[in-house]
Amino acid sequence: MRVKVLYEFKAQPNSGELSINANEILTVNRQDVGEGWWEGTNQRGQTGLFPAGYVEPMVTPTEPEAPAPQAMPNSQSAYDFGDGDWGEDDWDDDDDSQASNSQSNYDYSPTAHTSNATTPSSQMPPITHVSGVPKPSQPQQQTVRKSFNRFSTFVKSGGEDYILGIKTLTVNETHFIYIVESDRVGTYQWAPNPNPSNVSIDKPKKESKMKGLKSYIAYQLTPDSTGIQVSRRYKHFDWLHERLQDKFTTVPIPALPDKQISGRYQEEFIEHRRLQLQSWVNRICRHPVLSQSEVWQHFLQCGADEKRWKSGKRRAEKDELVGASLFFAVQPPAMSQSLDIALVDRKMDQFSRFVSKMDDSVKLLYITAQDQSKKFGGPYKREFSKIAHSLHTLSDAFAFSGVDGHHNNDRLNNAIKHTSDTYEAIGKLYVEQPKYDFGPMSDILHEYKGMLTVWPDILQVHKGAINKKKEHQKMLDEGKIDDKSVAQINQRSDVVTLSTLAEINHFQEERIVDFKDAMQHFLTQQILFYESIAANLKQTLELYNF
Amino acid sequence: MRVKVLYEFKAQPNSGELSINANEILTVNRQDVGEGWWEGTNQRGQTGLFPAGYVEPMVTPTEPEAPAPQAMPNSQSAYDFGDGDWGEDDWDDDDDSQASNSQSNYDYSPTAHTSNATTPSSQMPPITHVSGVPKPSQPQQQTVRKSFNRFSTFVKSGGEDYILGIKTLTVNETHFIYIVESDRVGTYQWAPNPNPSNVSIDKPKKESKMKGLKSYIAYQLTPDSTGIQVSRRYKHFDWLHERLQDKFTTVPIPALPDKQISGRYQEEFIEHRRLQLQSWVNRICRHPVLSQSEVWQHFLQCGADEKRWKSGKRRAEKDELVGASLFFAVQPPAMSQSLDIALVDRKMDQFSRFVSKMDDSVKLLYITAQDQSKKFGGPYKREFSKIAHSLHTLSDAFAFSGVDGHHNNDRLNNAIKHTSDTYEAIGKLYVEQPKYDFGPMSDILHEYKGMLTVWPDILQVHKGAINKKKEHQKMLDEGKIDDKSVAQINQRSDVVTLSTLAEINHFQEERIVDFKDAMQHFLTQQILFYESIAANLKQTLELYNF
Repeated sequence: MRVKVLYEFKAQPNSGELSINANEILTVNRQDVGEGWWEGTNQRGQTGLFPAGYVEPMVTPTEPEAPAPQAMPNSQSAYDFGDGDWGEDDWDDDDDSQASNSQSNYDYSPTAHTSNATTPSSQMPPITHVSGVPKPSQPQQQTVRKSFNRFSTFVKSGGEDYILGIKTLTVNETHFIYIVESDRVGTYQWAPNPNPSNVSIDKPKKESKMKGLKSYIAYQLTPDSTGIQVSRRYKHFDWLHERLQDKFTTVPIPALPDKQISGRYQEEFIEHRRLQLQSWVNRICRHPVLSQSEVWQHFLQCGADEKRWKSGKRRAEKDELVGASLFFAVQPPAMSQSLDIALVDRKMDQFSRFVSKMDDSVKLLYITAQDQSKKFGGPYKREFSKIAHSLHTLSDAFAFSGVDGHHNNDRLNNAIKHTSDTYEAIGKLYVEQPKYDFGPMSDILHEYKGMLTVWPDILQVHKGAINKKKEHQKMLDEGKIDDKSVAQINQRSDVVTLSTLAEINHFQEERIVDFKDAMQHFLTQQILFYESIAANLKQTLELYNF
Repeated sequence: MRVKVLYEFKAQPNSGELSINANEILTVNRQDVGEGWWEGTNQRGQTGLFPAGYVEPMVTPTEPEAPAPQAMPNSQSAYDFGDGDWGEDDWDDDDDSQASNSQSNYDYSPTAHTSNATTPSSQMPPITHVSGVPKPSQPQQQTVRKSFNRFSTFVKSGGEDYILGIKTLTVNETHFIYIVESDRVGTYQWAPNPNPSNVSIDKPKKESKMKGLKSYIAYQLTPDSTGIQVSRRYKHFDWLHERLQDKFTTVPIPALPDKQISGRYQEEFIEHRRLQLQSWVNRICRHPVLSQSEVWQHFLQCGADEKRWKSGKRRAEKDELVGASLFFAVQPPAMSQSLDIALVDRKMDQFSRFVSKMDDSVKLLYITAQDQSKKFGGPYKREFSKIAHSLHTLSDAFAFSGVDGHHNNDRLNNAIKHTSDTYEAIGKLYVEQPKYDFGPMSDILHEYKGMLTVWPDILQVHKGAINKKKEHQKMLDEGKIDDKSVAQINQRSDVVTLSTLAEINHFQEERIVDFKDAMQHFLTQQILFYESIAANLKQTLELYNF
């Protein structure tokens, strides 16, 4: 496959990366590198990694089979959670598996991987430079693989049967999920969790098993409802995530933090992962339905008792109230008549278009945030170092002036030297800054990217339900069926609609609060940053008062 | 000539510039483009302009004749004041010349030049990106052409004759130049100007002659000693500059502002030129010797009376007290014995090395300042635009959320929109900023670059004088000459030494004040800049309080 370079990319030295220039033609050797990287060879025969988003496939009429990789459900996307060569071993290992080699699974360093020669040097996902809003059909559109079969899961799990009343299920009241009308007329929401609680994740611990052959990170979770700390590994989160996805057809389960290449900055990496998991956990806690689910409670409350853990695990895995069956548990508010089809269509249509626009804009802002983070630590920092170096050279020259006994000469020198140090220090501020502004912004955007990817599938599920309602309405109009059977179909279809609307409502409320908080946090940190630069400069300016 | 690219350079679109990448090989077609630009062709056959300082000649053993252009006195350097195709016509025209074509000489637009297709788009001199301190032998070392023959001028104008006492000249007391001991023991300075005065340059006027066929800029100078405004064109400054250079062998006459490509930003260009000339004039005013010279007084005080102007012009051009002859006018302080040769050698040596170091560091800082100026207006600005665009896209998407009647949604939207505008505004601050910090710093560094280029020649002149003193000391030791003739040679050699020391003293005093002021100004502007960014962000942060 040959691709054309859209945007220049500079390789980090000794990273296995390949510098590419706009309009250059590359031959792609590997697309399964992961993390948004591809491996390719340029026309000078140099081979290395580059960001997949920086290139576009060469469209040749004679090559209609040219793949648009991310558009195919089975291809590996940049945010794929599937098994790849690139995962940290700790993230892949199975509970019951034996350590298959003597190499420590905890070893994050690239040398632990056979594919090490092509390991990108940066911990950050690649920057996809986009000058405009990416269209949904562009390869930039990343997809979480697990959600691809959501619709067919719905069908398979009996969605159609549910609507048509072919299958019935008696649900215990303790599992009821209530929908209520919200303050705003004509809108619906999940009934709030009567016992909301928070969960804190403490500093993770490195633990090991198999006599030290396997080691992993254990996160310590403390729900304030119990106050009892439980220890969870990433794979437990992963398992929980899968259960939640299976169970809640109308809820976009937030994605877990990406798999990342690490090995460097281990401490920072682990702390960042902790913050991301904390945010994920907070999102579950805030969700009226997820936070009350049995599997979540099991995850939070089961202690070190392995038997209890396994039985809860099996129970969750055998849960009947998953996929479409969960609708049997949904209790809609009392309604005088069935929902107006045209109104629902309009609402869903609007939301669908909104999701698409928000998806585009979140991706664009994410790319920008990642790009800025990279630039702060690289080019920006280097610019300040250059200024510092130039001033240092001047001060060195002045120290050589031979103007003996001239106090102002010495004071000037000292001041210029200090100014040089100040610019070097400002450069370091730039390196640190993304941790405080663009980094946290990237994290929240990443969470939204995940949820936004799932929404189209949820809306598809809804469309399936409302189409059944429409079909039966038509059959009724044609006198093919009676009022009674239509009323039941309408009622069940409305349960799907109301569930979807309740989730949309939750999503919108969350979105407003999340983006308000994110922007406030971001701007506050930016202000502190620029003020801190000014403060540094003020201090050095003082030295020129002689 | 083939050259290897050292640093990447990105062409401005439609500017005739050529983008070049590190390690690329170019064929140089023209080195006489001027302003530090060369024209070349890359290996893809593309031709255009690039900064000469970004490349290095390919050194091939079979091509020993590979030229190092700036090292040859007759080649055109980037800061050459000679006639080139690139000058603004107004700067070249002679007082008595006829307008040779009907095109307005005032027309700065590139279309007025035949070489227009290769006109660099930027008004700024090219950025020479240097990662370390340039060594004096590197091609970066620019030379002001007019100073190249300073030493031979000294010899030709009778320097040797002066030292040897072959030529004598009786100087009227009104032309005496006094040297006195300074406050610091063992150091000498020019006697201060008893009537120091300042000259202000007002907003320049566009004037025309030849019935409007020729137009030019006239600068209005008002010396506070007379309070009478006189009108001067750049060519008058140029003439004055030449007179001062001819006359003052031991004074590094500050260079006039560079010839520059203009045509765009005319107003800004003219105002910048005014500021540069004001700084040049201030430097002459502060100089104890230059400020008292007859030619300077004529330049300042002669009104619109053309006859008087021409007679003063002729008088200055026929001045006998130029070059080495000026030493006849120098009145050293009473000294009990001749200066110690070893001590003088040491001082001059130290200063010579200092000049070389300062030259390197000033050039490096100048390059950095120019580079920053360019980056502020280009890449930095674009980064803020990217952030602004991303936020704008997000706010656009949010406006489409369909969350009717949700006040916080509207407030959030409005706030994000405002934040986008704020980042766009910050981008504009970046564009404007170099005018306030790196621009003025570049200007003062440019003045120093000029003076530092001349110093080695001045020190050469001094070396000629002191070598004569050494020779005669040796001859005395060998009994070849008598005390008396040596005493006279010593005394005249000391006049040259003392003049040089006085000028060194003046230079050092000026340097300390200039760099103190420059750094204070620079830092103050940088502080205001970063504070202004923070203030903008604070304002937008307010909008999130809902």
